[in-house]
Amino acid sequence: MIRATTRLSSPIVAGLDPRPGLLSTAEEDASHGSFRARARAYEEWGRRVLDGLVDVVPAVKIQIAFYECLGLPGVRAYARTVRAARERGLLVIGDVKRGDIGTTAEAYAEAHLDAPARSIGADVDAVTLNPYLGRDALDPFLQRCRDDGRGAFALVRTSNPSAPQIQDLVADGRPVHEHVAALVDGWGAELRGEEGYSSLGAVVGATYPRELLELRGRHPHLLVLVPGYGAQGGTAEDVARALDDRGAGLLVASSRGILRAYRESADAGRDPTEGIRAAARAMRDDIRAAFEASRA
Amino acid sequence: MIRATTRLSSPIVAGLDPRPGLLSTAEEDASHGSFRARARAYEEWGRRVLDGLVDVVPAVKIQIAFYECLGLPGVRAYARTVRAARERGLLVIGDVKRGDIGTTAEAYAEAHLDAPARSIGADVDAVTLNPYLGRDALDPFLQRCRDDGRGAFALVRTSNPSAPQIQDLVADGRPVHEHVAALVDGWGAELRGEEGYSSLGAVVGATYPRELLELRGRHPHLLVLVPGYGAQGGTAEDVARALDDRGAGLLVASSRGILRAYRESADAGRDPTEGIRAAARAMRDDIRAAFEASRA
Repeated sequence: MIRATTRLSSPIVAGLDPRPGLLSTAEEDASHGSFRARARAYEEWGRRVLDGLVDVVPAVKIQIAFYECLGLPGVRAYARTVRAARERGLLVIGDVKRGDIGTTAEAYAEAHLDAPARSIGADVDAVTLNPYLGRDALDPFLQRCRDDGRGAFALVRTSNPSAPQIQDLVADGRPVHEHVAALVDGWGAELRGEEGYSSLGAVVGATYPRELLELRGRHPHLLVLVPGYGAQGGTAEDVARALDDRGAGLLVASSRGILRAYRESADAGRDPTEGIRAAARAMRDDIRAAFEASRA
Repeated sequence: MIRATTRLSSPIVAGLDPRPGLLSTAEEDASHGSFRARARAYEEWGRRVLDGLVDVVPAVKIQIAFYECLGLPGVRAYARTVRAARERGLLVIGDVKRGDIGTTAEAYAEAHLDAPARSIGADVDAVTLNPYLGRDALDPFLQRCRDDGRGAFALVRTSNPSAPQIQDLVADGRPVHEHVAALVDGWGAELRGEEGYSSLGAVVGATYPRELLELRGRHPHLLVLVPGYGAQGGTAEDVARALDDRGAGLLVASSRGILRAYRESADAGRDPTEGIRAAARAMRDDIRAAFEASRA
């Protein structure tokens, strides 16, 4: 994933979060009435969004909840969107935030990385995971990182307002999220590959730039998936400071910030795929400029 | 849920965890080869298991991961199993352990409690949730507890060996899981209904009986879902001490402990439904006897 990032000089992940308000007005109007119609609209929307991202971003993050909430047609649309992304050469992070133990964790790994997922095209390159249950929740995924070249990102510091309620509890002078980061770094130590980064990474919200910067300093081998850029408040300057000297080490995720361009373009009679491409390029260029300014 | 528990004097939840080794040997043999065949076998197995549980347990906990790992046919089988349970008058806890924020959390609530779930029969009475992201992850579910009579159980102290890694970090003299329990108790305070218990409950593993007993004393309004009974190590004495004076307040979950009877009965040429019924009754009677002994 790091290689793809540096190839494009683009530490960016575009989030596919299909929701009412992000499709074009015409697509919205045509997809009312049934979950099946909406799922089909998400699928077509997804392909047009993906077309705009090729060769601009290395990876996409697909939020499964927005498909899961459409029942079976939604699950099918998720799988087809994953497949469409991979066919276009994009790496896919399944934003599934699963977290369970024992054979259940194993079943989730099968569901998202193995043959069951492959059978419907839904096998992703990496997933997001919830670490509250400890290493047991990650083990089957770590095995697939080791054996099948997959990746995983454990939630460390989420981007939302109530994240501090548990993540900022202070134990032994350090907040819980720092303990979690240290655990994740340790669990992934044997999985360091591409340019020093482990295939077990961490999720840290761009909305907490101080924590992001500190984590970068403390854990130089953690690849960090950074949601909360743009619409949620994280800025190019915030993330640029946390990039490594090659401008890598983060995957800055933006969903609404990029996706908004789709509807705006389509509703104005322009090609929404081109709108997406321009928005993704603008984000890449913003971060690149902020990175260069921060090292000047 | 409490009413159903006391009606049956049975604070028990049977866990439906369909996995190789729990179906009968004949069913296993017949369902090899495709995810579709396996999903169909799980569906039929589920109906026979559920038939054995009627009027013995008030509720079942269905583990979605074991269905999710069979792709689309699995998701369909999960929905049909949920529906079959509800048709038999059993309350259903969807063991989904979802946890996300904002519109994503809303989408998960829709997926498991609202129309999208209803459209395929997969709408459950309650879900399990992961609280690591704070209250944001629970809000859409709390709204449905308030408005639609649904329930939710937040993970507090899980039953697995690595649970202490994060949950036992000590902040301000108390482990993280105690902080989480207090937060959950507070979030659910306005949802106290049936006999004083809130429809937002907690998950505490039977494998940590001291923590379970302490939580019971500290938070008398928390209905506690207790996995880890039987096969994982929790005993009738462990849970009996944490029941309230009416023998309620817990939902003790057993999966393998009950489900093993299915294969054993079927492979011995007996009716597996009756095997399940006998195993569930035995568990109920064990807990009842331990409860009476603990109060004698």
